[in-house]
Amino acid sequence: MKKLLYVYGFLFLLFFLYLYNFHFKDSLSSPITGDGNRFQGDRSEKFVMVTFLAGIDYWKSALKGFEDAAEELNVSVEYRGATQYDVHEQITVLEQVIARKPAGIAISAIDPYKLNTTINKAIDAGIPVVLFDSDAPSSKALSFIGTNNNAAGEISAHKMAELVEGKGKVAVITLPNQLNHQERTEGFVETIKSDYPNMEVVAIKDGKGDEKYSEEVTDELIKNDPDIKGIFATEANGGVGIAEAIQANKENRNIKVISFDTDKPTLDKIHEGSISATIAQGTWNMGYWSLQFMFQQSNDLSDIQQDQQLPNYVDTGVSIVTKENIHEYYAN
Amino acid sequence: MKKLLYVYGFLFLLFFLYLYNFHFKDSLSSPITGDGNRFQGDRSEKFVMVTFLAGIDYWKSALKGFEDAAEELNVSVEYRGATQYDVHEQITVLEQVIARKPAGIAISAIDPYKLNTTINKAIDAGIPVVLFDSDAPSSKALSFIGTNNNAAGEISAHKMAELVEGKGKVAVITLPNQLNHQERTEGFVETIKSDYPNMEVVAIKDGKGDEKYSEEVTDELIKNDPDIKGIFATEANGGVGIAEAIQANKENRNIKVISFDTDKPTLDKIHEGSISATIAQGTWNMGYWSLQFMFQQSNDLSDIQQDQQLPNYVDTGVSIVTKENIHEYYAN
Repeated sequence: MKKLLYVYGFLFLLFFLYLYNFHFKDSLSSPITGDGNRFQGDRSEKFVMVTFLAGIDYWKSALKGFEDAAEELNVSVEYRGATQYDVHEQITVLEQVIARKPAGIAISAIDPYKLNTTINKAIDAGIPVVLFDSDAPSSKALSFIGTNNNAAGEISAHKMAELVEGKGKVAVITLPNQLNHQERTEGFVETIKSDYPNMEVVAIKDGKGDEKYSEEVTDELIKNDPDIKGIFATEANGGVGIAEAIQANKENRNIKVISFDTDKPTLDKIHEGSISATIAQGTWNMGYWSLQFMFQQSNDLSDIQQDQQLPNYVDTGVSIVTKENIHEYYAN
Repeated sequence: MKKLLYVYGFLFLLFFLYLYNFHFKDSLSSPITGDGNRFQGDRSEKFVMVTFLAGIDYWKSALKGFEDAAEELNVSVEYRGATQYDVHEQITVLEQVIARKPAGIAISAIDPYKLNTTINKAIDAGIPVVLFDSDAPSSKALSFIGTNNNAAGEISAHKMAELVEGKGKVAVITLPNQLNHQERTEGFVETIKSDYPNMEVVAIKDGKGDEKYSEEVTDELIKNDPDIKGIFATEANGGVGIAEAIQANKENRNIKVISFDTDKPTLDKIHEGSISATIAQGTWNMGYWSLQFMFQQSNDLSDIQQDQQLPNYVDTGVSIVTKENIHEYYAN
């Protein structure tokens, strides 16, 4: 009798394990479940993020968003990228990724045109491709998810006006050949012109995306024009260089600096007060919604209609970072 | 001995039921599960869609997208709206919805300003609000998800140029006081002006969003100007009226019509050939991504960062519908 009880107990345990295992497996393998259940992915679905200068901090938050969405949807992700600022290297990386037929590719294009052939090749092979952060608008990619740079320039102009109390000369240090920087500059300049009659943009200079070069340009600028009250940097290296030049200037002028992005050197300059504000992009959103979009595309819904094609464009938004909210960005 | 077997069998069954019940309940109640599991909702989380002229077909596809996302995320939805084209009625409906503290509200604003106070009240009460289709840009709503109307006008202009082979006079019949229609008109007119030197927009008329009135306006227009080769209607009732006027015209002129949206009367006119093309908006996307956005906002992620606020704007895209692909839209 007692022996029989052990046998039953053992069978019981086996059954429990079987049941547990069954449920566990089921939750991992069925891509779409029936009534009342969630839409769910499969760990064998791999989505790849492809960048350039792949090691820089800038991509970390986008990758975090990508990973967060993957965890929610129960799919796998991989991060790849050109190590250098080199379009041919990015094309090679993209070719390698395509050859392994992933479930989707999110790419930040180093060049708005030169990747088109390779991107189109992926689309033609049935791999969903979305662009994030930096677009290739004439490619066949399904969507672009990134900052509205013109709006970012406008917001920077309003912040600059607040900092200089609506009057005085201001300047811009930018990368004049890159589309996103042109748009930031244009949004800034147009807003100052239309909304602040007592302000004037007196110079737009090339900082070459380089800290030292931007420092030299700024030094010359503020020596030649003693009335400059503020400088807007459309990228982070320039912002740091500008702050260095102003700090080194013997006249100790209170020139306000607005920069772009939230890398550590920029945040440090905000902390010490030599940069007043910087523009944070919605990089987490770029990664998060890139994955959500590709997942939707790669998992057939029950009745695909024409108007279910992916949205054309997502403006991921920007925020202004100052001393007051800087701690939220150091945490990244 | 046999009796004991029955007792064990019964206990076994009870245990099985308990286990099943436990798993079932678990899958419904935990909003975020641990490692390797999906982000999942709760049927008690209710998201509400609020429209105006709530009975018209136009909203069906947006509601379908809203419901599809809800099914994937395992949350509940409700559809509410003003029955009339009446801002006060929509405000009342919105107040009632807010009072029941839903998990989120997606609203298509009948007026770009008059709903601000009520929308802001919801946001201040901690209810995520997103706008879709028709924006209230100065409200505190978290995001706008809808058509880029300027781009829709541009696309219409290129299609019109194709239909009239790049030359001749064209006209627009629109609702001149509504922002989305102004943008469609502007996108159309500017594109004709810049890209098609042998075309000219000779008239922009108010069709009052009414079939009969648009028919009369068109009749007068084509009688007064025998050279008009094409008409762009920025909304569907106008499109049908234009087609009627051209069909009734005794000279039987081959005037091309491009309309907007995909209600049945418009599709029927495309089928019979009196409308050449219409612009389909990504209405399913509007509903689908509205719910996805609110769900993300209402379910705290593990480490909310500043740049995880919702995207500002989603351009849900448009498609051109002609005889060739009309069947995909009749299916709705």
